[in-house]
Amino acid sequence: MKERQQKLINWMVNNDIDICFIQSKDNIFYLSNMYSEPHERLNGLFFFKSSEPFLICPQMEVDQVKEAGWESDIVGYRDHENPWNLIKAEFERRNLTSINKLAIEKEVTNYYRVEQLQNIIKDQVEIIAVDSIMNEHRVIKDEREINILKQAAELADYGVEVGVSALKEGITELEVLAKIEYELKKKGIREMSFSTMVLFGKNSGLAHGNPGLNKLQKGDIVLFDLGVVLDGYCSDITRTVMYQSYNEQQKDIYDTVLKAQLFALNESKIGTRIGDLDKLARGIIAEAGYGDYFPHRLGHGLGISVHEYPSMNMTNNGLIKEGMVYTIEPGIYIPEIGGVRIEDDVLITKDGHQTLTNYSKEFTVIK
Amino acid sequence: MKERQQKLINWMVNNDIDICFIQSKDNIFYLSNMYSEPHERLNGLFFFKSSEPFLICPQMEVDQVKEAGWESDIVGYRDHENPWNLIKAEFERRNLTSINKLAIEKEVTNYYRVEQLQNIIKDQVEIIAVDSIMNEHRVIKDEREINILKQAAELADYGVEVGVSALKEGITELEVLAKIEYELKKKGIREMSFSTMVLFGKNSGLAHGNPGLNKLQKGDIVLFDLGVVLDGYCSDITRTVMYQSYNEQQKDIYDTVLKAQLFALNESKIGTRIGDLDKLARGIIAEAGYGDYFPHRLGHGLGISVHEYPSMNMTNNGLIKEGMVYTIEPGIYIPEIGGVRIEDDVLITKDGHQTLTNYSKEFTVIK
Repeated sequence: MKERQQKLINWMVNNDIDICFIQSKDNIFYLSNMYSEPHERLNGLFFFKSSEPFLICPQMEVDQVKEAGWESDIVGYRDHENPWNLIKAEFERRNLTSINKLAIEKEVTNYYRVEQLQNIIKDQVEIIAVDSIMNEHRVIKDEREINILKQAAELADYGVEVGVSALKEGITELEVLAKIEYELKKKGIREMSFSTMVLFGKNSGLAHGNPGLNKLQKGDIVLFDLGVVLDGYCSDITRTVMYQSYNEQQKDIYDTVLKAQLFALNESKIGTRIGDLDKLARGIIAEAGYGDYFPHRLGHGLGISVHEYPSMNMTNNGLIKEGMVYTIEPGIYIPEIGGVRIEDDVLITKDGHQTLTNYSKEFTVIK
Repeated sequence: MKERQQKLINWMVNNDIDICFIQSKDNIFYLSNMYSEPHERLNGLFFFKSSEPFLICPQMEVDQVKEAGWESDIVGYRDHENPWNLIKAEFERRNLTSINKLAIEKEVTNYYRVEQLQNIIKDQVEIIAVDSIMNEHRVIKDEREINILKQAAELADYGVEVGVSALKEGITELEVLAKIEYELKKKGIREMSFSTMVLFGKNSGLAHGNPGLNKLQKGDIVLFDLGVVLDGYCSDITRTVMYQSYNEQQKDIYDTVLKAQLFALNESKIGTRIGDLDKLARGIIAEAGYGDYFPHRLGHGLGISVHEYPSMNMTNNGLIKEGMVYTIEPGIYIPEIGGVRIEDDVLITKDGHQTLTNYSKEFTVIK
């Protein structure tokens, strides 16, 4: 944690930033190991160019923060207290003289909070975005993070396994979904990394389909998209199977998606331009005549957030680096027929890559 | 919907506000009937003092917006387009002359979005909060909303019923939780209104306990706190039961909480000062000697959000009005012994109130 904090403070020093305010759950966790969903309440970290940082949180979470390992000051506030007054007092205690630059998470910090800080600071202050710096720092995973991500991916594999075993004529999407989550909860999983998707038949053909009371029928495509949160880290897998029978078009779509996925996986190695992976997969899908039916990017980074850096889209000029973890998930969705998506979580290693999700991708017809 | 929009526009006219930007999922739903979780993408409504409003959303959601019943302009943007450019063009098309006041949801709109708007508007603009006005408008529920809230509350009752039936020696909290959600999903519920709580024994004594792999034992208090989202509206119930046996202190805590809850319910009627309900319940708990063990407010409004206006805390000087829906949920939590909370969803009617949740509150020992 200290190392991560120091990296942020170094950035502040290099850019002459006086104060940095971090308040998103994910970045707080990254920098302090405190995992807490404050809802409308304020949790925040304040870093300074040249004073000790502090963490502010509801009084009842102070013990939890200490247990998590935060070693600097902690300011707890009670329900009837105004946390901004306590923040002001901390600023004063630090004898901050003129404040010129304030860094905030521009994309997630609400306007009210920035207004409160401006009221405290009074000086005319330049507001700098810390979002992309935090994204950059988080994009390379360390060994501990990789170990957790591996376990989270194994549990995602297990979720698909449970879902596939639950398939039977007439069962609803929500029922299969509930069985998956039930078995994962039995293993101690408290939270899925996003709303689990189980889509049958035509419903799988909507890129934004929602699971409902559709009943499974022979000839349906079945699409699973799910992941778990384990020790603060996310997994994300998609698998698609056929139920009892299939037609040639379904098979053709499946083969095309799988081919695109495998080619993109194959190029997943240090030094590849990120946007080229999307282009490569998109090219294969277009060549097979389905170019209009792949409406989303190839994938996204994975870590504390289920969608984080890097964005695996064709305009991304960044290069793949060792320690990145991201998804590769091409898909083809044809209204009235159905959709196929195949998604793995991928770790970039010294020698290439490793897929963290390992459920079979072979074309499968469930009998 | 038109009526709700007009009410907002009237407020804008009365306060000379040129533009109002609404971008929270809940307020968008309230004003347009469009229910969508855009994640990091932008969904927004723009209202003007004297021009037609418009809605902006990802292109793939345009049909859904029309189906939801939005009758004014819709601006769809594709992934590669910058929505702020499209917003700028819409402003220009409306020939807005000098813009002096911009209303935003200060407590949920991120700083980046406000910056984008300021860049478009250019004029020195005063930024006004629309948050409390929207809260005020939403606090009185109409007949349609009340009907949905009633059904949502019935499903919460059912959730507790499932949970109680699942109790058996050695079962884990997460297993019971999973059974509850499984049965609710079978009934078509896609989303719980918050993370379901099932807490056994000592774990129930932490106001912020999390369900885990604790196993149920004789003599445990069992606390359920759960709710569903139905057609965009939330329910929220808490019930507490004893497993197989109990001691006198557990019974005393239960009786005290129930008494506090019933007294607060009894005063739930038009014209009561909201803060007095909290005071009343808190007084009963203090009188019984548990004053230090009721660390949270009495309850919260309920509707599109699971926590909305009014806040049922002792400092709230507002008066209770017909059509309000809120929770009453006193609790006593004693570390090492356990906690009891009892919570109902309450609707204020012409003649008093109606509890929407109706699972038994009698002291119960599960055999």
